Amino acid sequence: MNKRRGARSKMETLKAKALKMHKDHQGKLSVQAKVEVANEEQLSLAYSPGVAEPCLEIKRNPDLAYTYTMKRHTVAVVTDGSAVLGLGNIGAQAALPVMEGKAVLFKNFAGVDAFPICLDTQDVAEIIRTVTQLAPTFGGINLEDIAAPNCFIIEEKLKQALDIPVFHDDQHGTAIVTLAGLVNALKLVEKDFETIKVVVNGAGAAGVAIVKLLAHFGVQDTILCDSKGAIYQGRPFGMNPVKDQVAQYTNKTSIQGDLKAAIQGADVFIGVSLGGLVDQEMIRSMNPDPIIFAMANPDPEINPTDAIKAGARVVGTGRSDYPNQVNNVLAFPGIFKGALSVKASDINEAMKVAAVYAIAGLIEEEDLHDDYVIPNPFDNRVAQVVAAAVAEAAKATGVARI
Amino acid sequence: MNKRRGARSKMETLKAKALKMHKDHQGKLSVQAKVEVANEEQLSLAYSPGVAEPCLEIKRNPDLAYTYTMKRHTVAVVTDGSAVLGLGNIGAQAALPVMEGKAVLFKNFAGVDAFPICLDTQDVAEIIRTVTQLAPTFGGINLEDIAAPNCFIIEEKLKQALDIPVFHDDQHGTAIVTLAGLVNALKLVEKDFETIKVVVNGAGAAGVAIVKLLAHFGVQDTILCDSKGAIYQGRPFGMNPVKDQVAQYTNKTSIQGDLKAAIQGADVFIGVSLGGLVDQEMIRSMNPDPIIFAMANPDPEINPTDAIKAGARVVGTGRSDYPNQVNNVLAFPGIFKGALSVKASDINEAMKVAAVYAIAGLIEEEDLHDDYVIPNPFDNRVAQVVAAAVAEAAKATGVARI
Repeated sequence: MNKRRGARSKMETLKAKALKMHKDHQGKLSVQAKVEVANEEQLSLAYSPGVAEPCLEIKRNPDLAYTYTMKRHTVAVVTDGSAVLGLGNIGAQAALPVMEGKAVLFKNFAGVDAFPICLDTQDVAEIIRTVTQLAPTFGGINLEDIAAPNCFIIEEKLKQALDIPVFHDDQHGTAIVTLAGLVNALKLVEKDFETIKVVVNGAGAAGVAIVKLLAHFGVQDTILCDSKGAIYQGRPFGMNPVKDQVAQYTNKTSIQGDLKAAIQGADVFIGVSLGGLVDQEMIRSMNPDPIIFAMANPDPEINPTDAIKAGARVVGTGRSDYPNQVNNVLAFPGIFKGALSVKASDINEAMKVAAVYAIAGLIEEEDLHDDYVIPNPFDNRVAQVVAAAVAEAAKATGVARI
Repeated sequence: MNKRRGARSKMETLKAKALKMHKDHQGKLSVQAKVEVANEEQLSLAYSPGVAEPCLEIKRNPDLAYTYTMKRHTVAVVTDGSAVLGLGNIGAQAALPVMEGKAVLFKNFAGVDAFPICLDTQDVAEIIRTVTQLAPTFGGINLEDIAAPNCFIIEEKLKQALDIPVFHDDQHGTAIVTLAGLVNALKLVEKDFETIKVVVNGAGAAGVAIVKLLAHFGVQDTILCDSKGAIYQGRPFGMNPVKDQVAQYTNKTSIQGDLKAAIQGADVFIGVSLGGLVDQEMIRSMNPDPIIFAMANPDPEINPTDAIKAGARVVGTGRSDYPNQVNNVLAFPGIFKGALSVKASDINEAMKVAAVYAIAGLIEEEDLHDDYVIPNPFDNRVAQVVAAAVAEAAKATGVARI
């Protein structure tokens, strides 16, 4: 059996196992009661007439919902099914297994109670209205697998409308973990955010969020590319309001042309696009000690081994079978845990930056090396450390409510 | 300490205990993962890349959501907070403890996973649109504590829009348990549905549903009263479309006047209105062996002891400290359990009738007496028996999908 056939057979086994697991359990979530109702007295406390008391308290002071209800520990995982994993626009019903999976990760990694909300609409205004109406049950909203550019509008409007955190994980989760890896990689190559040139390929949810967060870390020279090449102010094709906005503070020398042209002389390449778009020649055209995050799934923009042979110093991917996996699970569970712990009204930039440094800081200086700039997803310190840092940042920026 | 002071002190203790319980547990619900994610392989099954398989299966055949997801065992408990218990229009946030409590009952009595959806709107069209969009996660929708007459429109439109059951418990749960009690009470007094006169007081959610269900059981002579007296066709005051509809098949002799006038010569009185509206003289004006369901909360339309002294034969209330408690928990857990078990697209009249007879039938003929026409809420046979009967009725009427 050759290697490719072996890999294929392994994938078939995984598929069969995944189907069986989902079928055996009828999905992956259940709702549990924290209190017993086995007799008249218990019924009178959990339900009528005793339940009237917390209701009246909350009516008097809505903030007490955090004291007397599930709101304090519960997050909605909201999707419209328009950009699900690598599967694309499969719709709300077919997206449910992914949203259940996300909720499993919330629980498993941070003890946060998360519930899937799969919305049977892809109309931006309807999604905004619906999620706004859903807020009473939840202490936070995790947007998931909503296609760009709708995801940007939906997140922005919901942040304005709601007094609980709204966080689109495909944007910020990916950006935060990537930046954590970059913080550590820059230590290894002894370069600074202020002086590096970064090329980001892919102008979807993750790419745009990464570019924004890079700016918060002081990067002066960023170029965002899409399938049509480098994005610059006034580019006469393939723009949208979000790209227009990005163009205002990136690509200051207005480089035009394709990714190959943009990547020359870059210190860092970050790919959130498609497999195989980067070749060894492009790596060789970069500055010394290039840092590569090739996160296309399942096939990276360049195979890590090929990248290293062409001179790449640090390589990260989205895959668990290579070093330096950029896995969102390092970020979102702890971020929401921290936000909920202080009844935060928002997850702001300071909280995201705090999460970046908390994740990066888990790797001690003496352990840091080219193959270990990002902690392992199963490092059980992560969520706790991230939550603590995020809670502190929330307090420092006035969005905590304790 | 006199009796009233003792009762007041007991209530204060209950209130304090209820608040403490809600605070200690931060509400009453949690979301649990049914699968572990402690290593790379488990992650690859519950999440990426394994989760893609059930997604693709559901994309090909949406019905498979019942096989691979939580849909098969999950119900939304939806409210707009407009008519919460005896508290009135306290809004969505303050309603959350009640909805959590309802979910606890679903789990405790029937193993159904229920999740509270408290909608921050009381606009009928918005509620309909929002709940329609939420359907993918759920195998059924339990509407709760939505004020009349909005509740009728919302339920009707949602039943049309969705291919999962929609059931407003305040209407049908109460009607089903009341009818179960009535089935048994009529055996005791040896009267038939076809020949009795029934007066229902209260034209809200429960009253209207009871009148409709009475018609399904063959009752020919029903009068529905509201605060303005008997409802009749063309009454020039205090009508709405639902009352107009009810007037078409009730009160055939067009009796006008107040409840006192309507109740004369009745065999059955059903109150879902306000405490103290019925006096002993009114009971004495009824036919021999009157049957009284005085379900106003917390104070019944007439105190059961007073009713019996005035000649009432069977008396039921909404309270646990009197015999024959009409408690919805006898109905909704088993009804949804049965509906979900056969992937029902609806909860139709046949399924409700099946639930009535299943509940009534739990009391053997030899055990039946005036103080025991309704099973105890903690009789652990109830949900199972109701579920089985409801599932059979669903199959027989073509709304089952197995």
